[in-house]
Amino acid sequence: MNAEARNASLVEIEHGAYGVPGVVRLTMNRPDAFNALSEALLDDLQTALSEIGRSDARVVVIAGAGRAFCAGHDLKEMRAAPSLAYYQALFARCTKLMMTIQRLPQPVIARVQGIATAAGCQLVAMCDLAVAADTARFAVSGVNLGLFCATPSVPLSRNLSRKAALEMLLTGDFIDAVGAKREGLVNRVVPADALDAELARLAASICAKPVEAVSAGKGLFYRQLEMGIEAAYQLAGQTMACNMMDESALEGVQAFIDKRPPDWKRDAG
Amino acid sequence: MNAEARNASLVEIEHGAYGVPGVVRLTMNRPDAFNALSEALLDDLQTALSEIGRSDARVVVIAGAGRAFCAGHDLKEMRAAPSLAYYQALFARCTKLMMTIQRLPQPVIARVQGIATAAGCQLVAMCDLAVAADTARFAVSGVNLGLFCATPSVPLSRNLSRKAALEMLLTGDFIDAVGAKREGLVNRVVPADALDAELARLAASICAKPVEAVSAGKGLFYRQLEMGIEAAYQLAGQTMACNMMDESALEGVQAFIDKRPPDWKRDAG
Amino acid sequence: MNAEARNASLVEIEHGAYGVPGVVRLTMNRPDAFNALSEALLDDLQTALSEIGRSDARVVVIAGAGRAFCAGHDLKEMRAAPSLAYYQALFARCTKLMMTIQRLPQPVIARVQGIATAAGCQLVAMCDLAVAADTARFAVSGVNLGLFCATPSVPLSRNLSRKAALEMLLTGDFIDAVGAKREGLVNRVVPADALDAELARLAASICAKPVEAVSAGKGLFYRQLEMGIEAAYQLAGQTMACNMMDESALEGVQAFIDKRPPDWKRDAG
Repeated sequence: MNAEARNASLVEIEHGAYGVPGVVRLTMNRPDAFNALSEALLDDLQTALSEIGRSDARVVVIAGAGRAFCAGHDLKEMRAAPSLAYYQALFARCTKLMMTIQRLPQPVIARVQGIATAAGCQLVAMCDLAVAADTARFAVSGVNLGLFCATPSVPLSRNLSRKAALEMLLTGDFIDAVGAKREGLVNRVVPADALDAELARLAASICAKPVEAVSAGKGLFYRQLEMGIEAAYQLAGQTMACNMMDESALEGVQAFIDKRPPDWKRDAG
Repeated sequence: MNAEARNASLVEIEHGAYGVPGVVRLTMNRPDAFNALSEALLDDLQTALSEIGRSDARVVVIAGAGRAFCAGHDLKEMRAAPSLAYYQALFARCTKLMMTIQRLPQPVIARVQGIATAAGCQLVAMCDLAVAADTARFAVSGVNLGLFCATPSVPLSRNLSRKAALEMLLTGDFIDAVGAKREGLVNRVVPADALDAELARLAASICAKPVEAVSAGKGLFYRQLEMGIEAAYQLAGQTMACNMMDESALEGVQAFIDKRPPDWKRDAG
Repeated sequence: MNAEARNASLVEIEHGAYGVPGVVRLTMNRPDAFNALSEALLDDLQTALSEIGRSDARVVVIAGAGRAFCAGHDLKEMRAAPSLAYYQALFARCTKLMMTIQRLPQPVIARVQGIATAAGCQLVAMCDLAVAADTARFAVSGVNLGLFCATPSVPLSRNLSRKAALEMLLTGDFIDAVGAKREGLVNRVVPADALDAELARLAASICAKPVEAVSAGKGLFYRQLEMGIEAAYQLAGQTMACNMMDESALEGVQAFIDKRPPDWKRDAG
């Protein structure tokens, strides 16, 4: 729909980020607009993630350029096209991006250094993991403008306790990084100047694991969450039996028995 | 079933509570019985909430008169009519009240100043939000009498983590207000003498939002919680697209773009 | 499958543990193997639990002999039989044990004094309650060997918040006892030398309740968790009405009204 020719992607892609082979960092690069998710930015994120999904990358980090992580949808763009069909298509496109993150074989980590609001907060909630600077703040603030953050409520209510999620959605108030960790929205909070070191550690830790275990495990995790416990166990048992037959698991377990490091050279990123 | 004529409702109804137009405060008024949920009190709460649901009230606060918030079912009444059919009807009536709270278009906030036990604790769990004085205490204590708090376990296990809920249900032990906040049963804990000021702030914050966003949002929140994530997103996207077409949202978003306060006079409570 | 004759069970069974009649303590007794869940140990736990399920025991405590609580599957045994069919059968057998814990009429409490890793961490998550010494540590560390802890992810993701569970599963990192309590994996953390006193208190508290309330309540708790809220309430209402017709509940409620202790002699363990 955005027909204007664009010279450059709004997403900066860095392979081998943090000096770790296998880590791809996607930086939303609309700092003057607080990285608001314009149609163009949504498209560029979708394109970048789809390509990563077919690549041998091991971990994805999503970051925001400038002071904000992401301020949600681009309100000027939204307001300029007031039709039900347009809004339905816009939210469907955003949902597709969010579900792409969950379905990606690679773990996706949000790097939150500033505000994450509305669909920006949703983005944090949809990532598999999130590391926040102590300067980060989180809100689902659409309700302040008369627009309840309905799509953000989907992952928010699956990360936070029910009342904490509803309070954020009904008041639009910010919570800080420590509150976000306490509620389950982020995994770790560190001083702002230690943010990249923490991301490097976390990403490197995941890259050190065999790819088969990580990708099958991530997929299983979300599928079993939507099942009753018996069906969940049945799927998990099948997944784990197949995983155990992978060369990497057989070698990893043998190495553990032999008290030596595993020989996983073929899996190097 | 309670055929005796009653002169006055057991629920005190105050419109414009806390000096905020749109806030209705319902006070359970059986202080000598720790506001136990007799059939008459259940009926009066049901009647009050049903009327509010059809009114232009914006926020409901549920409070208890005297020292207790609510001590659960009226045990004398229950013990006086020992038949399976009676108990089935009683719990069905209580469940209807609890579901009415969740289905009400207005957010419902529990104001917990003292003990909330058994169905009283369930009432807190079913409210959308809860503010507690530091003097509040919570228990699902039926098990102490040989009656497992089965219906309270439904919202309790949807607010707290699994093991924390089961510990309360199996031991009947009290948790204090700070514990209740940590576990997700209440949103905020304040000194007892600051309780009403905190409720005023929270209720006023919600009243300041357009009614369309709040009521559609609350309804969506609970419906999507019971769905798989894809169906949840589909419903949320539709809800949000419709919400965006409301005059209040179009005005709210335009005002944000124009860096001015929104003109929502028609929504004033 | 383990056809060798065994003279003694690998599970030590102590009735009346902690001096509390009705408490059965099962101690996994392979201390030199960190109580790894060999086929023989899985079988012995299954046999012990199945017998307890048919007995008049009131509470089960699962403990580990020596320094570790349980280190998960026996990796030497697993590695010695590398076939898909074998692994499928092994995880099915382990799942059966885990579901037996949840379906047991008696509450099951994990007593965690040391490391609980992989299926050992899963065992803690599947128990109804868990008490940990401050020396306990928890990890789902299979991913370090290339084997994602898929079956442990089922109860882990039903105890912890989503991101906390996924971080443990993707990194294999340990969390300590305080972190485990904060995340919902255990109920209580005490100094190591106070562990048994705390278990004694908790087990005695549950044994003091009528058996009908506890067993019907535990069953209802897990069944309603897998339902939508309306179906959950319907089942809970039926369960509670039936429970109220038990002699023990009628007596407990009457005793409360009479301000005297209930006369439950027939229920003594």
